[in-house]
Amino acid sequence: MSDRREFRDLASPEDARAVLDSLDLEPEPETVPLAEARGRVLAERVDATIDVPGFDRASMDGYAVVAADTFGADKADPVTLELAGAVHAGEEPSVSVEPGTLVEVSTGAVLPPGADAVVKVEETTEVEGEDAIEVRTSVAPGDAVMLAGADVAAGSRALGPGTELTAREIGLLSALGVGEVPVRGTPRVGIVSTGDELVRPGEPLNSAAGQIHDVNSYAIAAAVEEAGGEPVLYPHAGDDYDEMERLLVEGAEECDLVLSSGSTSASAVDVIYRVVEERGDLLLHGVAVKPGKPMLVGEIGGAAYVGLPGYPVSALTIFRAFVAPVIREAAGVEEPESAVVTGKMAVRERYEGGRQRLMPAGLVEDGDGDVLVYPVDKGSGATTSLVDADGIVTVPADTAYLAEGETVDVTLFSPDVRPPRVLCVGEDDPLLSRVLDRVDRPRFLPVGTREGLRRLREGVPDAAVVAGPESPEGETVDLGGWTREWGLVVPDGNPEDVAGLADLVDRDLRLVNRARGSGLRRSFDDALEALAGERGGSRHDLADSIDGYGLTTKAHESPARKVAASQADAGLGLRATATDLGLGFVPLGEQAVDVVAAPERAEKEGVRDLERALDGSDDLAAALDGFEQR
Amino acid sequence: MSDRREFRDLASPEDARAVLDSLDLEPEPETVPLAEARGRVLAERVDATIDVPGFDRASMDGYAVVAADTFGADKADPVTLELAGAVHAGEEPSVSVEPGTLVEVSTGAVLPPGADAVVKVEETTEVEGEDAIEVRTSVAPGDAVMLAGADVAAGSRALGPGTELTAREIGLLSALGVGEVPVRGTPRVGIVSTGDELVRPGEPLNSAAGQIHDVNSYAIAAAVEEAGGEPVLYPHAGDDYDEMERLLVEGAEECDLVLSSGSTSASAVDVIYRVVEERGDLLLHGVAVKPGKPMLVGEIGGAAYVGLPGYPVSALTIFRAFVAPVIREAAGVEEPESAVVTGKMAVRERYEGGRQRLMPAGLVEDGDGDVLVYPVDKGSGATTSLVDADGIVTVPADTAYLAEGETVDVTLFSPDVRPPRVLCVGEDDPLLSRVLDRVDRPRFLPVGTREGLRRLREGVPDAAVVAGPESPEGETVDLGGWTREWGLVVPDGNPEDVAGLADLVDRDLRLVNRARGSGLRRSFDDALEALAGERGGSRHDLADSIDGYGLTTKAHESPARKVAASQADAGLGLRATATDLGLGFVPLGEQAVDVVAAPERAEKEGVRDLERALDGSDDLAAALDGFEQR
Repeated sequence: MSDRREFRDLASPEDARAVLDSLDLEPEPETVPLAEARGRVLAERVDATIDVPGFDRASMDGYAVVAADTFGADKADPVTLELAGAVHAGEEPSVSVEPGTLVEVSTGAVLPPGADAVVKVEETTEVEGEDAIEVRTSVAPGDAVMLAGADVAAGSRALGPGTELTAREIGLLSALGVGEVPVRGTPRVGIVSTGDELVRPGEPLNSAAGQIHDVNSYAIAAAVEEAGGEPVLYPHAGDDYDEMERLLVEGAEECDLVLSSGSTSASAVDVIYRVVEERGDLLLHGVAVKPGKPMLVGEIGGAAYVGLPGYPVSALTIFRAFVAPVIREAAGVEEPESAVVTGKMAVRERYEGGRQRLMPAGLVEDGDGDVLVYPVDKGSGATTSLVDADGIVTVPADTAYLAEGETVDVTLFSPDVRPPRVLCVGEDDPLLSRVLDRVDRPRFLPVGTREGLRRLREGVPDAAVVAGPESPEGETVDLGGWTREWGLVVPDGNPEDVAGLADLVDRDLRLVNRARGSGLRRSFDDALEALAGERGGSRHDLADSIDGYGLTTKAHESPARKVAASQADAGLGLRATATDLGLGFVPLGEQAVDVVAAPERAEKEGVRDLERALDGSDDLAAALDGFEQR
Repeated sequence: MSDRREFRDLASPEDARAVLDSLDLEPEPETVPLAEARGRVLAERVDATIDVPGFDRASMDGYAVVAADTFGADKADPVTLELAGAVHAGEEPSVSVEPGTLVEVSTGAVLPPGADAVVKVEETTEVEGEDAIEVRTSVAPGDAVMLAGADVAAGSRALGPGTELTAREIGLLSALGVGEVPVRGTPRVGIVSTGDELVRPGEPLNSAAGQIHDVNSYAIAAAVEEAGGEPVLYPHAGDDYDEMERLLVEGAEECDLVLSSGSTSASAVDVIYRVVEERGDLLLHGVAVKPGKPMLVGEIGGAAYVGLPGYPVSALTIFRAFVAPVIREAAGVEEPESAVVTGKMAVRERYEGGRQRLMPAGLVEDGDGDVLVYPVDKGSGATTSLVDADGIVTVPADTAYLAEGETVDVTLFSPDVRPPRVLCVGEDDPLLSRVLDRVDRPRFLPVGTREGLRRLREGVPDAAVVAGPESPEGETVDLGGWTREWGLVVPDGNPEDVAGLADLVDRDLRLVNRARGSGLRRSFDDALEALAGERGGSRHDLADSIDGYGLTTKAHESPARKVAASQADAGLGLRATATDLGLGFVPLGEQAVDVVAAPERAEKEGVRDLERALDGSDDLAAALDGFEQR
C-alpha cells in the first residue's frame, strides 16, 4: 500500500483556473486555402488589395448609353439610338459608345468606353429590320452602373483578426480574390489513456479478467473537437512507468496539450504523477471540486499537461469546466451563448459542502415552457449518467442546498447538446423502446413502474410507463397502452419441462428475478401470493424456497439473457423476449402497460408527439410476440 | 434578344417550399468508425449488446470481504482478517474470499469469488509483520460493489435514431463497445458555378475584360457544410450549353442535390434552364420573393436541382431560406435555436409589396441589452452586405412597412454567425482600422463623417467616427481621438512639382477626389473656399477648373492608389497613405478625428472595449506618419 498517495492541500477551483490560464498552449498561426477556411478564426486583419468590382460594371441586362442622349425620352416620346455592338460579361469591350449610339450589355459586363449609364432591357424595343433600339425612358449618369471599387475599395479594412469565418465571410474573401487565409492554429491535444484494464471500443472484451471498454479516449477526443482542438489519440498505456513516460513525453513533443485519463485506480494515477514530476513540472495536484479531486496540472517539455479523473462522467465534467475553456482560448473560438441554459431547480437538493460541486443535471421543459433542472446522481462510475444528464450545475462549496424553484445555470456537456423534448420514466418495455424511435428527442429513464410513478408525482418527468397491477395516485392523462404476455423464459425446447410457478417452488430450478418496483416483479409476486393462498401458506415462505428469487436484475431482458447464457433455468420475462432470443417460454399471465402523463404536461409538444406515436404503433405491437394494442 | 427569357407566373414561397420538400435528397445511411462519429446522426436505434460493467466490480480501492465478517466492527472494536491475495484492475482473480479472509482490490477490479462487498482502504490498517488487515467499519453486502449490468444492461435501449452524437453519446457508445456506428448519410451537394466572367479566388483577374472572382462557389460550399451537407465543387462552366449540360449531368450522377449559381446574366440562366428542361424535369421557375425571383427547382436524373440567383447576397439568402432546410432535413440535423434571433426594428422601413421580401438585416444591442434590427440595403450586387448584415428578416408580400420598434425574427446567415459587440460608423481611417483589431467583434461601416453622424442621430449605431470640421449635433460621449495630416498624394518624388492647392486650379493636373460627406473632402472644400476668398472668387468656379474634382472615390486610400496606378497626378489623402504606398505628399493641413458614442450606449461593454482600445493606441498612432494621439 506504500505506493498509494493521498491528495492533500487541495487547490481551490479558482487557483486551478489561474494555473491553467498560465499555461501556454496557443499554436502558431497557419495559412489555409480559402476552401478549407470555414470555421477557422482569422489570425490577422485582412485588408482589400483590389477594388471590387474591378471595373465600372453594368448592373442590369440592357444597353449602355450616354445618359444625355436619353434626356426627355418616355413612353410617349421614345428616342431611337443606333446599336453599335454588344459587350457580354467576361468580355473586354471592343466598341465604345458615341453620342447617338448604344451598346448591348449583359449584367456584369464592363461598361464600354464613352457610356455613363445603362438602360434596362425592359424599357427598350428593337426596331425591326434596323440595327437600332428605341429607348422609352430617360436615365441619369450612373444609372444601373456599379463603379469600380464601389463595393469594396482597395486598401479598406475587410475583416479583423479574431473573426470566425462563416459562409458570409468566405463570400467576402472570395470577392477580394483571397486564395489563402491566415488563421489561428488549431491546438493539438494528445490523449493518453491509462489503465491495464482498458480495451478500445470495437475490440473484444474479456470480462472475467475485469476488462472494460475505454470510454474516455473517444469521449474526450470528441469534446476536444467541440472545444476547437484537434485530438490526437495515443495507444493505451498500462500502469507501467516506462511506457507511460514514453507516451507522455512523445505526446508532449507532438502536441500543445496532453491529457491523461482512463484509469480510476490510485496506482495508475500515481505512476502518471511520478512521470510528470520527473520529466516535467507538476504545478497542481488535487482540486477541491467534486467530482475531480485527483486532477493534475503541469507541464511536460513545452506542452501543457492535465490529468483528468478516471470515471467518464467525472472526466467529461472536469474537461468541460476546466480544460475546454483553455482550448477555446488557445483556438480563439468563443463558446456559443447557447452552451449555457438557465432553469429552475425541479427539486430541492442538499450538498455536503467542503468542496465545490459540479452536479450533473438533466433538463426538461414544464407545461409553461420553463426549463426545469433535475440532479442526475447515479455515482461517478455510471456511464449512463452521460446521456441522462445534459450538463453541469456549479454549486459553490458553502452551499448547503439548492431550493426547489431556485434559478441555476446549466453548462451543457457540449455546446451542441440538445435537451430532450419529452422526459419519460418507468417500466422498460420493448414496444415502448420502438415507439420512442418515432419520437423526436425523447429521454426515457428505465427506473421501473413504482419509481416512475413516484417521480411523476414529484413533478419532474412528463410521463410515466406503468406496467402491471400498480396504478397512479392522483390525476393523470392516458397517452396510450397495450398488454404484454409475461411468464418464465426457459431454455429453447424447455428441457426441464417447467410448467409453471409451482415448479420453481417445488423443484431444484434456478431463477433470475426482476428488481422490486418493476411491474413484472409485482405481477410475479401477485402470482406467488395466489399460489400461497391456494396452498394455505405465506408468499414469503414460497419465495424463500425459490432458488434465485433474490437474484434480481435491472433490465427486462437480463433474466432471459442469463438463461441464454446457461446461468439459470428460468428467468422472469416476456414472451416477446423469449421469441427474440430463440428461447422457450412458459406463460404466467398478461399485464397492462400504460403510458400516463402529468396533466399539466399533456399539451406539451413532445408529449403530444409521444401520444401520436403511441396511437400509431399497431404495426410495432403486431411485430412483438404476446403484445396487443389496447 | 430572342434568347432572353422573362419569368412569368411566379410561384408563391409556400409553393416553392412544397416543391423543394417533395424532392428526395436523403442519402443512404452509412457506417462510420466511432472515432469519426462525432456530429453525425444515428440512423437507427442502438441497443446495448453487453452488460456494463461486464462483471461485479470494486468501485473503491480497498479489500473484498464477506460482508458478514465485518458486522459489528468499528473504530473501537476493529476486526482483523487474513490477507489472501490481491486483484488489480484488468486481472482475472486467482484467489477467492473465504470467511475470515480478505483480498486487496483496486478500483475497477473484478470482485473475487466469495466476496460480496468492499471495504475502503481508508477504513483499514495493515497489521505490521503479518499478512493481515484490521477493518474498522462494518459493511453491508453490495457496499462499494457495482454489479454486472448495473450501469447498462444488455438488451436495453441505449440511443434512439435521430440522436446527434456529441461527446457524451460517444462516451456511452464506447462503454457499449460499439466500434462502428450506423449514421445518417451526409447529403452530397454539387455546386456548379456559371458565367464566362468568373475566376476562382486566388487566381489572377483581368478586370479590363470584366472578370470578377467567383464569390458564390466557396460561400455556398461553406453554407452547405453549415447545413450538414458535403459540398462538391465542379469546375466553372461558361455560358456554353454543352459544357453546362456535361457538368450538371455529372453533378447529378455524383450528388444528391445540384446547385447552380454564379452568373447574374439572363443568358447563362437561360442556358441552365434549357439543360434542366431537356435533361431533367423543371418543376418550378421563378418565385415571388425578393431577392431571388429567378430561382429554379427541378430534378436531373435521380438528383434534386436548385438554381440560385447570381448575386452573392441573393444567392446566400435564397440558400438560407429555401435550400438549407432541405439539406438539414436530409442530413437529419436540426437547426440550433440560436440561429434565429428576435429583435426590434431600429427604424421604420417601407416595402413595395407584391413579393415576399427577404431583407438582409444587421443586429446591434441597445443600451438596455435589447436587440435592434436595422435593414442593410446596398443592392444585391454588393458583397459587403454579406458582412454588414447578420441575417434575414422575412417580410410578407402584403406588408407595407415595418414600424420602428416592431418585433421581428432574424434568421442568421449561418447558425454560427455572431453579431457585432460594437457598431461604429463614419469616416474610414487607418488608425481606426488598427484600433479595431484590438476590439472583440467590432463592426465598422465606412459611410463617411456626415452620414455617420446622421445615423448616430437616428439611433442605430453605438458610435461615429468624425473627421474634419463637422461636429455632432446633440449630446455625445467622447471615446478618444487623434489628428491626421492630410493633403495631396502625388507620385514618388513629386515629378510635377505640385506645391499646393493653387496648382490644381491653375495647372493642367488631374485630381482624384473623395466623396462628399467625407471629412477629408470637407477639409479640402474648406481650403478651396479659403483660396477662393483670397482670390475674391467663388469656390465653385475654382472647383470647376480642377480636372477630376468630380471624380470621387469611396475609400480613403483610393485616390492615392489611382496616383500609384498613374491614373492621376494627385489624390486627396493622408500622409500616412503616401508613406505606406511609397508615394510623394504635399501637406495641406491637419484635421481632428473623434470617436463619439451615443450617450445611452456609452456603458455598453463593446463601447467600453472600444474606448479602452482607443485609450491604449499610442503605439499605433506612433507607427502612422502624420498621426498624433490627442
